Amino acid sequence: MPAFTENAAPALLDRFKAVRGATASLCRPLSPEDMMVQSSPEASPVKWHLAHTSWFFETFVLSEFLAGYTPFHPDFRWLFNSYYNALGDMPEKKLRSSFSRPPLDLILAYRAHIDASIEQLLQHPIEDEAARRIALGIEHEQQHQELIATDVKHALFTNPLHPAYIERTELLSGTTIAPPLEWVDFAPGLTEIGITPDPSSTDLFAFDNETPRHPVYIAPYRLASRLVTCAEYLAFLDQNAYNRPELWLSEGWTTIRSEGWQAPLYWQRDSETRSGWSIYTLHGLIPLEDLSETPVCHVSFFEADAYARWAGHRLPTEFEWEHAAARFGTQGNGSSRSESSKTPASPPANLLERGNLHPTAASHLAGLQQVFGDVWEWTASPYTGYPGYASLPGALGEYNGKFMSSQIVLRGGSCVTPSSHIRATYRNFFAPAARWQFSGLRLAHDAGR
Amino acid sequence: MPAFTENAAPALLDRFKAVRGATASLCRPLSPEDMMVQSSPEASPVKWHLAHTSWFFETFVLSEFLAGYTPFHPDFRWLFNSYYNALGDMPEKKLRSSFSRPPLDLILAYRAHIDASIEQLLQHPIEDEAARRIALGIEHEQQHQELIATDVKHALFTNPLHPAYIERTELLSGTTIAPPLEWVDFAPGLTEIGITPDPSSTDLFAFDNETPRHPVYIAPYRLASRLVTCAEYLAFLDQNAYNRPELWLSEGWTTIRSEGWQAPLYWQRDSETRSGWSIYTLHGLIPLEDLSETPVCHVSFFEADAYARWAGHRLPTEFEWEHAAARFGTQGNGSSRSESSKTPASPPANLLERGNLHPTAASHLAGLQQVFGDVWEWTASPYTGYPGYASLPGALGEYNGKFMSSQIVLRGGSCVTPSSHIRATYRNFFAPAARWQFSGLRLAHDAGR
Amino acid sequence: MPAFTENAAPALLDRFKAVRGATASLCRPLSPEDMMVQSSPEASPVKWHLAHTSWFFETFVLSEFLAGYTPFHPDFRWLFNSYYNALGDMPEKKLRSSFSRPPLDLILAYRAHIDASIEQLLQHPIEDEAARRIALGIEHEQQHQELIATDVKHALFTNPLHPAYIERTELLSGTTIAPPLEWVDFAPGLTEIGITPDPSSTDLFAFDNETPRHPVYIAPYRLASRLVTCAEYLAFLDQNAYNRPELWLSEGWTTIRSEGWQAPLYWQRDSETRSGWSIYTLHGLIPLEDLSETPVCHVSFFEADAYARWAGHRLPTEFEWEHAAARFGTQGNGSSRSESSKTPASPPANLLERGNLHPTAASHLAGLQQVFGDVWEWTASPYTGYPGYASLPGALGEYNGKFMSSQIVLRGGSCVTPSSHIRATYRNFFAPAARWQFSGLRLAHDAGR
Amino acid sequence: MPAFTENAAPALLDRFKAVRGATASLCRPLSPEDMMVQSSPEASPVKWHLAHTSWFFETFVLSEFLAGYTPFHPDFRWLFNSYYNALGDMPEKKLRSSFSRPPLDLILAYRAHIDASIEQLLQHPIEDEAARRIALGIEHEQQHQELIATDVKHALFTNPLHPAYIERTELLSGTTIAPPLEWVDFAPGLTEIGITPDPSSTDLFAFDNETPRHPVYIAPYRLASRLVTCAEYLAFLDQNAYNRPELWLSEGWTTIRSEGWQAPLYWQRDSETRSGWSIYTLHGLIPLEDLSETPVCHVSFFEADAYARWAGHRLPTEFEWEHAAARFGTQGNGSSRSESSKTPASPPANLLERGNLHPTAASHLAGLQQVFGDVWEWTASPYTGYPGYASLPGALGEYNGKFMSSQIVLRGGSCVTPSSHIRATYRNFFAPAARWQFSGLRLAHDAGR
Repeated sequence: MPAFTENAAPALLDRFKAVRGATASLCRPLSPEDMMVQSSPEASPVKWHLAHTSWFFETFVLSEFLAGYTPFHPDFRWLFNSYYNALGDMPEKKLRSSFSRPPLDLILAYRAHIDASIEQLLQHPIEDEAARRIALGIEHEQQHQELIATDVKHALFTNPLHPAYIERTELLSGTTIAPPLEWVDFAPGLTEIGITPDPSSTDLFAFDNETPRHPVYIAPYRLASRLVTCAEYLAFLDQNAYNRPELWLSEGWTTIRSEGWQAPLYWQRDSETRSGWSIYTLHGLIPLEDLSETPVCHVSFFEADAYARWAGHRLPTEFEWEHAAARFGTQGNGSSRSESSKTPASPPANLLERGNLHPTAASHLAGLQQVFGDVWEWTASPYTGYPGYASLPGALGEYNGKFMSSQIVLRGGSCVTPSSHIRATYRNFFAPAARWQFSGLRLAHDAGR
Repeated sequence: MPAFTENAAPALLDRFKAVRGATASLCRPLSPEDMMVQSSPEASPVKWHLAHTSWFFETFVLSEFLAGYTPFHPDFRWLFNSYYNALGDMPEKKLRSSFSRPPLDLILAYRAHIDASIEQLLQHPIEDEAARRIALGIEHEQQHQELIATDVKHALFTNPLHPAYIERTELLSGTTIAPPLEWVDFAPGLTEIGITPDPSSTDLFAFDNETPRHPVYIAPYRLASRLVTCAEYLAFLDQNAYNRPELWLSEGWTTIRSEGWQAPLYWQRDSETRSGWSIYTLHGLIPLEDLSETPVCHVSFFEADAYARWAGHRLPTEFEWEHAAARFGTQGNGSSRSESSKTPASPPANLLERGNLHPTAASHLAGLQQVFGDVWEWTASPYTGYPGYASLPGALGEYNGKFMSSQIVLRGGSCVTPSSHIRATYRNFFAPAARWQFSGLRLAHDAGR
Repeated sequence: MPAFTENAAPALLDRFKAVRGATASLCRPLSPEDMMVQSSPEASPVKWHLAHTSWFFETFVLSEFLAGYTPFHPDFRWLFNSYYNALGDMPEKKLRSSFSRPPLDLILAYRAHIDASIEQLLQHPIEDEAARRIALGIEHEQQHQELIATDVKHALFTNPLHPAYIERTELLSGTTIAPPLEWVDFAPGLTEIGITPDPSSTDLFAFDNETPRHPVYIAPYRLASRLVTCAEYLAFLDQNAYNRPELWLSEGWTTIRSEGWQAPLYWQRDSETRSGWSIYTLHGLIPLEDLSETPVCHVSFFEADAYARWAGHRLPTEFEWEHAAARFGTQGNGSSRSESSKTPASPPANLLERGNLHPTAASHLAGLQQVFGDVWEWTASPYTGYPGYASLPGALGEYNGKFMSSQIVLRGGSCVTPSSHIRATYRNFFAPAARWQFSGLRLAHDAGR
Repeated sequence: MPAFTENAAPALLDRFKAVRGATASLCRPLSPEDMMVQSSPEASPVKWHLAHTSWFFETFVLSEFLAGYTPFHPDFRWLFNSYYNALGDMPEKKLRSSFSRPPLDLILAYRAHIDASIEQLLQHPIEDEAARRIALGIEHEQQHQELIATDVKHALFTNPLHPAYIERTELLSGTTIAPPLEWVDFAPGLTEIGITPDPSSTDLFAFDNETPRHPVYIAPYRLASRLVTCAEYLAFLDQNAYNRPELWLSEGWTTIRSEGWQAPLYWQRDSETRSGWSIYTLHGLIPLEDLSETPVCHVSFFEADAYARWAGHRLPTEFEWEHAAARFGTQGNGSSRSESSKTPASPPANLLERGNLHPTAASHLAGLQQVFGDVWEWTASPYTGYPGYASLPGALGEYNGKFMSSQIVLRGGSCVTPSSHIRATYRNFFAPAARWQFSGLRLAHDAGR
């Protein structure tokens, strides 16, 4: 069992500290009472996220790799388990809103204990597996940062007073006009999809569901240069789209009927605005007319699919998306991970660090814009394993593989995704009716052969 | 419009202060996070109870009778409305667990504002109607004190850690042996049921559903001298009662099947106790064997009815109960409101002020014991209006009358009922499947004519 | 064990044959396919009714009292059991629509076999208990005749073609004008309610829930001289009653919201009629204007209660109703069973034998009209056991008693009740939301003391 | 608009008559009452199938292409519409069990009327589009033949008497032993999937979801030589598989918990058989030991997936399956449609015409066995459109495309699929929890590269 490169431990510790600190920053505007709210079965209280991400390090790293480690609290092992059936019973998810005890103070002490223990572990060279587990724990915590943002948004929206999480920023200003939609063409052929990680490095992290890298044949296609905007989506609404069955998948039609949906989540009729609509954001309610050039978000797969059909186009497959992103994508840090970038310098992607916490209008540069950040892009691809896919051994094997049915892949990250977390091969996935995430769409089209 | 007796205002203020203070005392062991929990659709968070009881005084007393009164917060009028449809929209009850805002501090400031305003109002003689409303608000707050106790119990029980509300007291000790069950006979004839309040006094408060006093013919009957105990109920369980349809009302059988009930609420299988059961109380989990002589509680009407059938008896009607209570009942303050008490001095009733927060074993005195306090006693009587019943005018008319279908009357108060709140004519009511209240039973039987 | 009077057996046989023949007559307009339909969980297919009523005689009479009796088919004992848990498992009610086998022919053969066996049994004097069981079986079959009419109505209505059961009769004609509503006063006092059957006779049959006869004190009251009409109910609708929560019991409001009710069952918006409504009847769809003077029917208890509240009155208690019916009621056969009838000759009640199969307008005679027949009258009384009530021993004990929760008493029979089946003491009962029966209402009011 | 080849019309008519006759043959063992049963929301009554398949010809062929055609009945156009929203309202599917009217006789007259009209139309050369519609209608009717078999099986099983559809045949005999499972290897590379129909011919019919033919890259893989048997599946059960969450997809685990599944549909505990199980078939209940060598069927995708995981393998993708079937498959008529068959002569596939109506044991020949017939094989592929997929114009566009979410592709046909209906490119699809179809599985595995 080869020991992890000595020099890598400090870098891993830096990354660990940065990510743990980012979680704490996200919670700053929240009271202990705010951190108790669970406003839907899909969501969890912030307090639970704080504990569960710590539990992950305790269970999969410290208990196995830190000699003499004592668990912080005997009940926490089962209390903050989420879905790892292999680790035994866990509380029902719907009971998470009852977690008034342990109190927040104790949860924060738990976090501090974990932080100190990881720091202790990383004082010395560690085994490769330990390093991989810490890297996984860091990515796991980043996923929960995104969930904190989306769950808090839903929790505050559910409150009858609709309070804001933070004050409105300038970047959401409606003065920016989105560029006209253009099409970018891609030639047919075999392409390589996914990633096969270098076992000797934790540098290029990937989840098991992104592996292995493998050939896929792609027919010629075109992608829209930017995301669909609120103004464009409003035109869809105004053509009575939510009452025309021929625009919808059968399951989508059933869903919008039974749920009573007539617009994206967070859109509300508001007779006091010019457009007749307000949109709830993490900055409070904003008139739709002030957001009309920004990408539509909080739509389900069914709505994205129906919009595309109405527009005479379709959603891209996840392979088309990844193929394009590998060529055009620019991430938040200004550097692209793509193999061969052919685009002029794009503005930094609208990811969590930008602090907008809401999608913003596309830039007027040429080529694909908004590839990373802003909103998760629904693809046409159901979520399945790649050829040769193998889940991790043990309890960690439940991380991804067990969800490979009746879910749809989303790509590209959103305005609440940490920039170091996203990449062209990243596969997010949700049920087709889910819309509490920052999810939107980009159009695609078949091209002549 | 006659002014309320000058001398009465100070007494009313004293009573107001005492009851408001008692609410605060109940909350002392709870954190702000505890006060956020809503663990079932029937329950509400403590924070909501604190606000709603204040809202009641603001809406029905201060806004109408205190000249120049300014509401504490413009949103609170609809935010803390509960079921008064006549007052306009209100938030859905299930959303109460999302009430992280307004924060607890603001709720407490709201309470202080209401307290000061009522005190101001009562500096001077007031109108009769204002006095009646304050008296109603006081009783309303006492009802919510009981709900705080029951809702907190459920909330803490739902928490996977099962924490206690307060430490276990001595009074629950299993060393006391309940006396043998004896029968007390009552002769047939016309009796008077209910109360017709003296409009010139707020002294003898009654809810509209207790009025008017009216004749009822009662056939000869017998009542058990004490409540059914846990030990007795365990015998019922041990005879496979929850799997024998012939013991149950049809609706009861359907309920226990669909809910999967095999024992009263808060009873849990526990292989580490002698009896094989533990019971969750406000003092935490206690082995059943330590509570076997105390009255069974947290049973539904269906379970009370099935137990009585199994035992070869029946539940008393609410008229039989009231007829007996008026003769035998002794309340917590040691004085009986009965017309003609024939019993030797009973021990003080086990009501909220006793601090047991759990039913205790009956005394060995002669006559009816445990008439008031310990547990609400399920009767055989569906909840309907008395002949000539009229609900209060306006929004307050929704207080009682609108619930007169598919509910069953319970009598006598429980160990979490304030002693000044209960009386022989008091009619509580719940759906027959409800069991999160401290509800138990006393047996009855037809007597020869 | 005394033998049943020799002379009584032939009379019982005559009655048996008449009732069995009436069932066959009811089925004449139906095809085997019609007799298969189960259009709601409350309803049963006609074929099942035909078998189950025969099963009742086989199980409770022939198997016990006819020496050497062989059951017609070994599976029928459990196959056509309905709710007698004491007799072992039975098929789920919702599966009754799957009963394509046994075929109708076999069911008819079953009926013939039972008929012949009962005839054989009644060739000779029989035991009292056997006679009582046969009498019970006859009443049971009459109850199912009424269910056949109501279930067929629902089944044909559910069919998208809305076919009629039989052609429209003249008696429904809208030319008859209902008399103005008048009030009939009743004095307060003790009255006798229910019946204590003479054990030496089967002549005066009563269900266990009508027993024993017992004193009840009644306050002074008034009853409306006739039932509420469709025209009157339409005025209630036209005042937006289904959207005004203050008119409804809390449970009623919840029910009409969740069910989407905006009118009685079988009322349909119809732009081609003058009134804008059509009503489905056993004679097909009829414009409301042609039925406006006939009693409203197919309303739930909640709707009856809300109508009465809106009208400034209330529903009668079952005791008030029975007290009045015993004095005024006239049944279909033209003779009253009341103790002392003080009314002029009323027209024959609109019961099953009249063949109208729909309620008809009241007569213009003085006194209470429409006491029996037309529609079952919702009372204000929840269904409970009378003082001293005891259910029958064994499986027959499940007949009535187990339903004594969350149901409301209805009185008086309807246009599909056999005339020999109804009497002043008869207690029907349904859940307060039920409305597939012919159920309507009569107003009541407190009178001065 | 080119006219359909004159010579082709007679052949089309022959095919039409043959298929219509086959539907009638399927109904022969059924009574009119049997044809009324709808035993689950997924199923339809046989009577409805008979009418709906005729409605298809009336709506899409006769109304458009037969000059002067008069619809048989004015209500049938909407009455027997199924899911074609574009054609206006239709009755709710759950109401189909209420269709006692129109009576079976009228439905049969409807069929005769359609038959005669199509015959009339085909007396003369017809337009290409008319021919394509008739061909589609024929395939549509064959799909409903399969549904009749599956729906009748469920209907008779639901009947508490569990009657057989027809007598047990010899072919199900347990004396045949299935061959040991072997693996067949396939090399990696680009392959062509799907079909691009020749617009000048109706000979090679294909549904829109099979088009267009397009390249797909396939990694090296192996397929099991035969289907998984009941004996093998029983071993899975016997290892407690239904209680081990690690074997299941998350959605699958939730499904088997909420549905209470412990075995395939139609498996019943039976203490009177050697194996402890009986299996309901169209020939009645049969001891599992008599079927142990036959393929397991009536499993959901979740069960197929879990079995494969437990066995250390996986399900094939639909592309792997089609690639193999095009090389190895032999259909019921003895001739293969594959491009280049390399197998020795296989026995005729176990399809509908064989009359087994149940899967049978595999043959001992080399190569892939049971490719067509026996059971539909669950693949690992969610159901989506092929690149360039376009649905048919108008209402027929709803045939396939609208179901492309949350469904899984099945391949190969079953023992109740007509032989002329199945082909290597055929894509069936069901929700992953569906199991009332004859659905089973074949194992697959990655091969070294």
